[in-house]
Amino acid sequence: MPELRKDPITRRWVIIATERAARPTDFPPGEPLQNHSSNCPFCEGQETRTPPEIAAIRHPGTAPNTPGWEVRVVANKYPALRIEGNAHVTVDGVNETMGGLGAHEVIIETPQHSLHPATMLPSQLVAAIWMYRERYRDLDRDERFKYLLLFRNHGRSAGASLSHPHSQLIALPIVPKRATEELEGAQQHFAREGRCVYCDILKQETEARVRIVWENADFVSFAPFAAWCPFEAWIVPKHHEASFGNLSDGQLPALADAMHQTLGRLYQCLSNPPYNYIIHTAPYDTKVGHFYHWHIEIIPRLSQVAGFEWGSGFYINTVPPEDAARYLRAATPPAPAAQPASAAQPVSTD
Amino acid sequence: MPELRKDPITRRWVIIATERAARPTDFPPGEPLQNHSSNCPFCEGQETRTPPEIAAIRHPGTAPNTPGWEVRVVANKYPALRIEGNAHVTVDGVNETMGGLGAHEVIIETPQHSLHPATMLPSQLVAAIWMYRERYRDLDRDERFKYLLLFRNHGRSAGASLSHPHSQLIALPIVPKRATEELEGAQQHFAREGRCVYCDILKQETEARVRIVWENADFVSFAPFAAWCPFEAWIVPKHHEASFGNLSDGQLPALADAMHQTLGRLYQCLSNPPYNYIIHTAPYDTKVGHFYHWHIEIIPRLSQVAGFEWGSGFYINTVPPEDAARYLRAATPPAPAAQPASAAQPVSTD
Repeated sequence: MPELRKDPITRRWVIIATERAARPTDFPPGEPLQNHSSNCPFCEGQETRTPPEIAAIRHPGTAPNTPGWEVRVVANKYPALRIEGNAHVTVDGVNETMGGLGAHEVIIETPQHSLHPATMLPSQLVAAIWMYRERYRDLDRDERFKYLLLFRNHGRSAGASLSHPHSQLIALPIVPKRATEELEGAQQHFAREGRCVYCDILKQETEARVRIVWENADFVSFAPFAAWCPFEAWIVPKHHEASFGNLSDGQLPALADAMHQTLGRLYQCLSNPPYNYIIHTAPYDTKVGHFYHWHIEIIPRLSQVAGFEWGSGFYINTVPPEDAARYLRAATPPAPAAQPASAAQPVSTD
Repeated sequence: MPELRKDPITRRWVIIATERAARPTDFPPGEPLQNHSSNCPFCEGQETRTPPEIAAIRHPGTAPNTPGWEVRVVANKYPALRIEGNAHVTVDGVNETMGGLGAHEVIIETPQHSLHPATMLPSQLVAAIWMYRERYRDLDRDERFKYLLLFRNHGRSAGASLSHPHSQLIALPIVPKRATEELEGAQQHFAREGRCVYCDILKQETEARVRIVWENADFVSFAPFAAWCPFEAWIVPKHHEASFGNLSDGQLPALADAMHQTLGRLYQCLSNPPYNYIIHTAPYDTKVGHFYHWHIEIIPRLSQVAGFEWGSGFYINTVPPEDAARYLRAATPPAPAAQPASAAQPVSTD
């Protein structure tokens, strides 16, 4: 029999198909990783084809917007929001409008075109995550921003228009609805139980061990009990912390390891599937430290049914998370592709 | 400058791109309507290839599960939920599970394979909607059900695995999250203003007339102010009513007209785009009559970005609803395809 499961945080019910459950081979493979194309504006040597560098990790002695970098941040050429905007609100009857203020940046995670977090060297992933945190902290200084949405689209059907490894961030003058839902749910759990709901989930998952994908000293990755979609996976820090911005230097290698292991197993198990991942973090300037808990949600894009689900709020997941976790545990992440050792150092050109 | 708009009901913020806005020709056309295929289990003459008929509109003297019908309802062969289930709840720590009880039916809207609501005769659309309402009312009699989700997927990328015109319904033992959000938002507006938020929206839209697509005596169709996605359109009854189940016989032709006009203009303007539509209605057995207002939401599936938006709750719409409405007003819905006159009558075989 299928069953309904309730998300312990947002109280959203999903259907989990427990009979005729889909297997990894029931889903079409993703596109193969693409070789460098001379058209790619994110490749080394093409620096003048992007907006100017906002920050970079660079080899000593190299100038901004020239080769010699490991991670590079530029403004999105087609920004969803604009930094020179304002957040003035106008009201017209029931309708409320706010100016399109925001930052929209691209974090180019490596100069090498055909890598994937699954095939990057650990040091490269650490550098990319270091830069995520750096941008999180830098944009926190702009009081106009209330939330930072940091995400990665991989594969064309996940919304990536360029295949070169990159993530994006959007700094927002408002808190998006999904974050509000999580905050409200977590606050209610805290009011009821006196504990962080994510800490409670971690405790239960690490005891039950039926949905765990990978665990190291600082992070746990698992398929959530009420997963919305097949092979959804979360990476959650073991130590309670509301803000991604407070990730410590000491935690960077463990997060890179958890991401490599989780994304690498998805990569192997589902043949490089398209996916989105989103860093769920506390809004800027809010007192949510005791009940919220930052984490990363990975959403493989394996089926086409999301439109109806999106419009109705009603999700049907054809792979029980226990099955997904078992398949992912059994997979082996790929070995990192050979890359030259780097002497690059962080440089902010902001 | 782009702008942020807040949905007056759910308080969700969306980004509306007001510069470089997309035009209808920026989106790929849908697949052409397909001719009858001998493989189609929903075509006339193939009745034994579906689960047995639950209800039908039939020509007098024809037997269930034989030719001679105009609209036919059968159980979904691959149901998401099962009618013989139960809704017992089990709790395991933070996790809550409910038995997968529910009904999952398919409403085959016409015996003719290659029609679309845009090209059906008005009488055919009336018959299909009549059957929607009939199933809504019939399933209301089962006290185990709390909500009826009635929806149509059109086009492969909108989740339709068969191209023969059909809708689906899922009767649920819970109220899905999106419905809860709308109910809460509408209730808060009522508490604040003493009026139905949908009635307020209708009043404002029919006065401003910048987002109206079509209007007749009983229904208004318009692009909502804070549309999530390009060419999103809502069809809303002018007369305040919470439940789709209370749609009167007298309103049926006007609803069929509003659907033909709205879907027909989408069909012409965007070359038969894939879409989902969902009937948003009050839950069964709830006292929400004074503040909720049933309606239909049409979500064309024009872009691939929904995954990130779905996971973050943050939507970017590249077509301002004012532009979408203008394009749709300028389009002409197709003339109905010639179809034989029908003498079919409703028959319930439940």
